[in-house]
Amino acid sequence: MKIVIIGGVAGGMSAATRLRRLMDDAEIIVFEKGPFVSFANCGLPYFVSGEISQRDALLVQTPESLKARFNLDVRPFHEVTAISPATHTITVQFNGQEQTETYDKLILSPGAKPFTPPITGLVEAKNVYSLRNVPDLDKIMTGITADTQQAVVIGAGFIGLEMAENLKKRGLDVTIIEKAPHVLPPLDEEMAAYVKNELLRVGIHVYTSDSAISFADAGKKIVLESGTKLTSDLTILSVGVQPESSLAKAAGLELGLRGGIVVNENYQTSNSDIYAVGDAIIVKQQINQQDGLISLASPANRQGRQVADAIAGKKQLNRGSIGTAIVRVFDLAAASTGLSERSAKLAKLPVAVVHTSGKDHASYYPGASDITLKLVFNPITGKIYGAQGIGKKGVDKRIDILATAIKGKLTIFDLPELELTYAPPFGSAKDPVNMLGYVAMNIAEGLSESVQWYEVKDQLSKGKILLDVRNPDELAQGTFPNSINIPLSELRERIKELDASKEYIVSCQSGLRSYIAERQLKQHGFTVKNLDGAFALYHTVLPEELKYV
Amino acid sequence: MKIVIIGGVAGGMSAATRLRRLMDDAEIIVFEKGPFVSFANCGLPYFVSGEISQRDALLVQTPESLKARFNLDVRPFHEVTAISPATHTITVQFNGQEQTETYDKLILSPGAKPFTPPITGLVEAKNVYSLRNVPDLDKIMTGITADTQQAVVIGAGFIGLEMAENLKKRGLDVTIIEKAPHVLPPLDEEMAAYVKNELLRVGIHVYTSDSAISFADAGKKIVLESGTKLTSDLTILSVGVQPESSLAKAAGLELGLRGGIVVNENYQTSNSDIYAVGDAIIVKQQINQQDGLISLASPANRQGRQVADAIAGKKQLNRGSIGTAIVRVFDLAAASTGLSERSAKLAKLPVAVVHTSGKDHASYYPGASDITLKLVFNPITGKIYGAQGIGKKGVDKRIDILATAIKGKLTIFDLPELELTYAPPFGSAKDPVNMLGYVAMNIAEGLSESVQWYEVKDQLSKGKILLDVRNPDELAQGTFPNSINIPLSELRERIKELDASKEYIVSCQSGLRSYIAERQLKQHGFTVKNLDGAFALYHTVLPEELKYV
Repeated sequence: MKIVIIGGVAGGMSAATRLRRLMDDAEIIVFEKGPFVSFANCGLPYFVSGEISQRDALLVQTPESLKARFNLDVRPFHEVTAISPATHTITVQFNGQEQTETYDKLILSPGAKPFTPPITGLVEAKNVYSLRNVPDLDKIMTGITADTQQAVVIGAGFIGLEMAENLKKRGLDVTIIEKAPHVLPPLDEEMAAYVKNELLRVGIHVYTSDSAISFADAGKKIVLESGTKLTSDLTILSVGVQPESSLAKAAGLELGLRGGIVVNENYQTSNSDIYAVGDAIIVKQQINQQDGLISLASPANRQGRQVADAIAGKKQLNRGSIGTAIVRVFDLAAASTGLSERSAKLAKLPVAVVHTSGKDHASYYPGASDITLKLVFNPITGKIYGAQGIGKKGVDKRIDILATAIKGKLTIFDLPELELTYAPPFGSAKDPVNMLGYVAMNIAEGLSESVQWYEVKDQLSKGKILLDVRNPDELAQGTFPNSINIPLSELRERIKELDASKEYIVSCQSGLRSYIAERQLKQHGFTVKNLDGAFALYHTVLPEELKYV
Repeated sequence: MKIVIIGGVAGGMSAATRLRRLMDDAEIIVFEKGPFVSFANCGLPYFVSGEISQRDALLVQTPESLKARFNLDVRPFHEVTAISPATHTITVQFNGQEQTETYDKLILSPGAKPFTPPITGLVEAKNVYSLRNVPDLDKIMTGITADTQQAVVIGAGFIGLEMAENLKKRGLDVTIIEKAPHVLPPLDEEMAAYVKNELLRVGIHVYTSDSAISFADAGKKIVLESGTKLTSDLTILSVGVQPESSLAKAAGLELGLRGGIVVNENYQTSNSDIYAVGDAIIVKQQINQQDGLISLASPANRQGRQVADAIAGKKQLNRGSIGTAIVRVFDLAAASTGLSERSAKLAKLPVAVVHTSGKDHASYYPGASDITLKLVFNPITGKIYGAQGIGKKGVDKRIDILATAIKGKLTIFDLPELELTYAPPFGSAKDPVNMLGYVAMNIAEGLSESVQWYEVKDQLSKGKILLDVRNPDELAQGTFPNSINIPLSELRERIKELDASKEYIVSCQSGLRSYIAERQLKQHGFTVKNLDGAFALYHTVLPEELKYV
């Protein structure tokens, strides 16, 4: 059998090597339009700061090593320009020459291409770069000279933030512009606010709800929609990607959502001898079964292996994805899995959320640091839709546990049952993930009712009273302006100071003590809710909201 | 309702506080025979080295704080000496006085007590300590004087290893004695060998398959079964624990495995008004439904909360445990979840295992360190029985993911589907857990056949040939004495050097390249198996085995 693969990075190369392990006698040709195959694209940003110092470290395999090890015919600088399904041939451009190649089975792994926003003067700009591959990286490195001082990153998604961090670490003055109301749009606003804080802390300038509308002076001048004018010596465009599906379209293959290639459970396109994997295909979001596009290395690798299995006659089905991602932003990590609160609500699912703050390991053991988690779930069935986490350490672990829980169809009622590694240097007897489950269960079972950060201003304006049960020594950190303070340990004695005809919202530092107060007050007949996220959330990331509370 | 709780640490105190949140008007009395309640028992060893320097940090709550916050009547120094189920009363000793207390519901959370081995001279020894609580810690701290130089730890389980580490960090010369053939008996031998290596590296003396048979000179002299004589200024006895069920037994409650208290799904003992939680109860091992005893903080906390729910009429059932644990041993972490290979085989389950070695995060990003994982599974159904991990970083995360996978009844076929956080500082596009799944699937699907470390000597003696496919530059690290070497990249050309009438075992460094070679050779008609664990396992932890290979 002759199998031709278009695209030699994550999905394509995983398919090629797996095919070889399954079909030693197959002819396998990989066409890659760029100079490199099988490179570590997720590592590219870190080369900018020098954190990864060896360019060779990013080049995982070469055509020679792939020939020797896997007997693969890997052809870089070969651009496939047309597919003819009827004749089972493709047209290839190499070195100015056009070739024709036949195939029995064709695998498309073309990836995604940077989305280019309609910015006046973009074509004339000389200092605007995207980053998807090694040649892009080389251009950026050449573009950074001794005179480069001001860098502007347009788009504050995962790659935009990585580029901002690495440019800053390189010593540049960095500005980020994000069209959405907050950085890191895959996260919800209040969680992303921690990331914005961190960017500001290190001196990065951040503009949200704003976008570049024009470049002038060959890109040196940038005007934003808000009227703000910026100077840029180097501009990175990272406003998202779109499926590279032009070949597939021209070949008449069925496309769907935003031009993504439609595939079935065996990764077959609408032509049964043509398969597709990676960033270019439409995947089922496993949580709500909606179509989605996911531009991540891990799913691409898995799909590459699975398409090889499918072609070799093994049963490995495309089960879709939930989407899990993480980014380091200086001292913080920010991660998410599954659906955000916003996307769950957009999908019209019944949604509840809880926020918890805790420590990455036992607080009595040295070096514990804060970790803030958010869980998005169905309050009736307990189904977990998604989770987000922020902290200096241990965020990857908690989101991985929750991503695994989602894959295992565990509910909030199962999270307390998780038996996780515990010794003081590593965790807590009740891990933050267990706690997240307990807190969510309290909501689902009606033991606790919560008020979200975007509801509190309205509720207070309607006459509810904020009761802060922190201790007097904690008030030095800041207070809710319109609150009364009774420490939890005094609440039993002083309950008569409260007016049972009023409605209360209780808060403390993390939400634990206020929940205890809520339970106490509820059992004494009070109408009371718990402020989800508590002072920690307001103080850290919602200072504007705090003014009103 | 009047609820009396015996034992004021993990399980008992979790029950008490949850009960208060559910039943504000209940009378709740907690009797604790020791001076402290709700202390951080898992932190105790770290106080010995000074890594945790504040003794107060270990004391989480006091009777006063529990009274103020939860309206609990907590009575330390109160030892319950008898239970009379017929009269719903208990007898309590306090300050030399005997009291009687009534109850409507009684919760037993007595914990476990150190097992005391039959060692001659133990009673006369003045320098032998166990570590279960704060008074034990205080005795040890008093026992360590300026003259204390030699410490002996009897028992190399989790607590024994923590004590050995902390005594060593305090500057003592430490010897560990373990009756089992290897340290850390919950792990399998070859995984525990990494831990032994680490102990030896830091200068701790290790005796396995040996035990103390007599103390002399008030404990200063120890004679081992092997005849070895040791000097000890301070001896820690940590040879395991047994349920503290004497009260329950005297009250006529049903006991089971090794004296553990039998409870039903609501944590009720054989007397329906008496409940029990924590280390003293028998739990169902969720993986094989056999009875087990688990002495860990996390399950005790969960059970405490659940028994409160049960008493308050909420439905939270005791679903059993799988057992997950971790220990830091100097620079290494060693963790396990579920069943070991040994225990799965003892339970007569169909068992396969795989070992993988990889990096905790992308190898091209600075600071990646080795992580070795072992998966124990059913090769037919793919059911995961258990996992073990060793490494400097990221072991807790991988074992937590696998523990969650077990709870979610995910199989080996699901592990590659896990979408885990990936950015170069945190993981890899194919996380070690995904890889573990791929490798296990290759076994289950018959693509690969493996030889385990304890089988290789025998198989080689029967004429099989070990083919090492590492590169020449890797051979400097060491070789398999009786092997032939053909680098993987040359194997296709040099396949004619192999004798198709012979049977081969292939190895490389980590097992990945040898698997590729195995596939290649199999497809060319060779009889060949892959050496599971590969050179990494032999070189690091099985030097004795390596001699024969």
